Amino acid sequence: MKPIENFSQLTDHLKTLGRRKRVVVVCANDPNTEYAIIRAIEEGFAEFLLIGDSAFLQRYPALQKYTEYIRIVHIEDPDEAAIESVRVIRENEADILMKGIISTDNLLHAILDKERGLLPAGKVLTHLAVMQIPSYHKLLFFSDAAVIPRPTLQQRIEMIWYAIHTCRNFGIERPRISLIHCTEKVSAKFPHSLDYVNIVELAEAGEFGDVIIDGPLDVRTSCEQASGDIKGIVSPINGQADVLIFPNIESANTFYKSVSLFAQAEMAGMLQGPVCPVVLPSRSDSGLSKYNSLAMACLTCKANSK
Amino acid sequence: MKPIENFSQLTDHLKTLGRRKRVVVVCANDPNTEYAIIRAIEEGFAEFLLIGDSAFLQRYPALQKYTEYIRIVHIEDPDEAAIESVRVIRENEADILMKGIISTDNLLHAILDKERGLLPAGKVLTHLAVMQIPSYHKLLFFSDAAVIPRPTLQQRIEMIWYAIHTCRNFGIERPRISLIHCTEKVSAKFPHSLDYVNIVELAEAGEFGDVIIDGPLDVRTSCEQASGDIKGIVSPINGQADVLIFPNIESANTFYKSVSLFAQAEMAGMLQGPVCPVVLPSRSDSGLSKYNSLAMACLTCKANSK
Repeated sequence: MKPIENFSQLTDHLKTLGRRKRVVVVCANDPNTEYAIIRAIEEGFAEFLLIGDSAFLQRYPALQKYTEYIRIVHIEDPDEAAIESVRVIRENEADILMKGIISTDNLLHAILDKERGLLPAGKVLTHLAVMQIPSYHKLLFFSDAAVIPRPTLQQRIEMIWYAIHTCRNFGIERPRISLIHCTEKVSAKFPHSLDYVNIVELAEAGEFGDVIIDGPLDVRTSCEQASGDIKGIVSPINGQADVLIFPNIESANTFYKSVSLFAQAEMAGMLQGPVCPVVLPSRSDSGLSKYNSLAMACLTCKANSK
Repeated sequence: MKPIENFSQLTDHLKTLGRRKRVVVVCANDPNTEYAIIRAIEEGFAEFLLIGDSAFLQRYPALQKYTEYIRIVHIEDPDEAAIESVRVIRENEADILMKGIISTDNLLHAILDKERGLLPAGKVLTHLAVMQIPSYHKLLFFSDAAVIPRPTLQQRIEMIWYAIHTCRNFGIERPRISLIHCTEKVSAKFPHSLDYVNIVELAEAGEFGDVIIDGPLDVRTSCEQASGDIKGIVSPINGQADVLIFPNIESANTFYKSVSLFAQAEMAGMLQGPVCPVVLPSRSDSGLSKYNSLAMACLTCKANSK
């Protein structure tokens, strides 16, 4: 498989997979979610079960053209809609879960329910996103801008594993993973930089398989060869990072918000850890971003390997 | 004074001030520092005392054209050169201190010397930078990408004061200061968000004078009105931030590195706290960035108010 280097190639690839993925959407009550649904139907890679209040189809008459690919279940209460969507996944009636306009906390409550939720015991729940930046030559994955405030060493290792699996889904055979800090110096003042030393040792011992992992490195040195050259930094990343693992949620979120705003980047993102891909956009995400996230979920869902 | 909205206006303004600022440069041994020196001489707002090893003028013959505005003191040892440059400032033989190619730690050691250094007792040492981002309509100041890993409440208050003073030097009469976090929610899980509540209360009580301070806000809501509108956030910042105060050094550094790389931003920066402006560029800063930083220092130095 040729690596997918932008979102347009992602859509093209999904069209070749043949079978439509089954997506359940909770409370799809906004025009941006509607855009994502219609476009995924038209591109031919998804069909939908929409769970939410009964006023839905009146609000979005455009959806009525696609009844072949849309089923609707009316549940007025958002919390009950969330619980039902989780049941649908557990009973294998859908492959992917997507959030519409319901509070993240309410949906997570249903997903994280210990007996009837979607997160297997011991699994780390984290967020992985990917950006298409006009001034970068390929997609750039990063974690975690949304869920874990200060990852532990074990959580960082899981974040890396999720990123590796997702990169492979995108056709990146040997992902370059950069562990982000302000500088290339390791210091006890910054405990995450000590974690990085452990992780690089594990990678060098072959623990993560055929990947390149290095750090601490800053964002610039990770993504621009000339920056490393000037500072005399020799890194196997070589300014070609596929993945940035950030030290904390504030730095990852700053990356996401500032690059999307100032560098006109397009974004996709999903939760990692649950038994199925979970698309959890924020309220202010654009229709395009919600569509890209849905496409990312359809690429990485297990239904592809059946 | 009309607000300075980009670096070109900064140079234009400096030309109107008449008197050249006296800049002492330690170990100006690189072409990017040479570029900054020559351009500041040619624009007419600075003259230089260069302290460093004796091979200097041989390496940069271009400087010999400007002997009217350059004096040279040969000191071979970088640590001694640093100590001498600090003495020169203390004796009022120069207005501004600039770092060439000497390690930051060595220069800071001389600056922070309790008896013969430049930081008055009790003063907070921090870094303030400013970016000219092609996709933003004015300059954007931010702190602290380089010095304080996790500011205390008192340090955040000092960072805000420094930013206010610098904004006034740039002609911004009522600076809009945004306190950055991942979301607009205050939570005990994020102690800096509690600091922000304190700071906003102080601002509302008039403690900071005629400024607008709000937070927690994310980078996007701080700098784009539409983002706040979608999320229903009503903030006096209104997507027009002049200053971003980041929660920690990792997020500020990520902002600096990613926006400069992916959004082609130009940068200037200097230390705050010492008795004079201190320009402390990193090795990989461009000649233009070193020049902009020098210009920022010349704008904010006390010699202007004499």
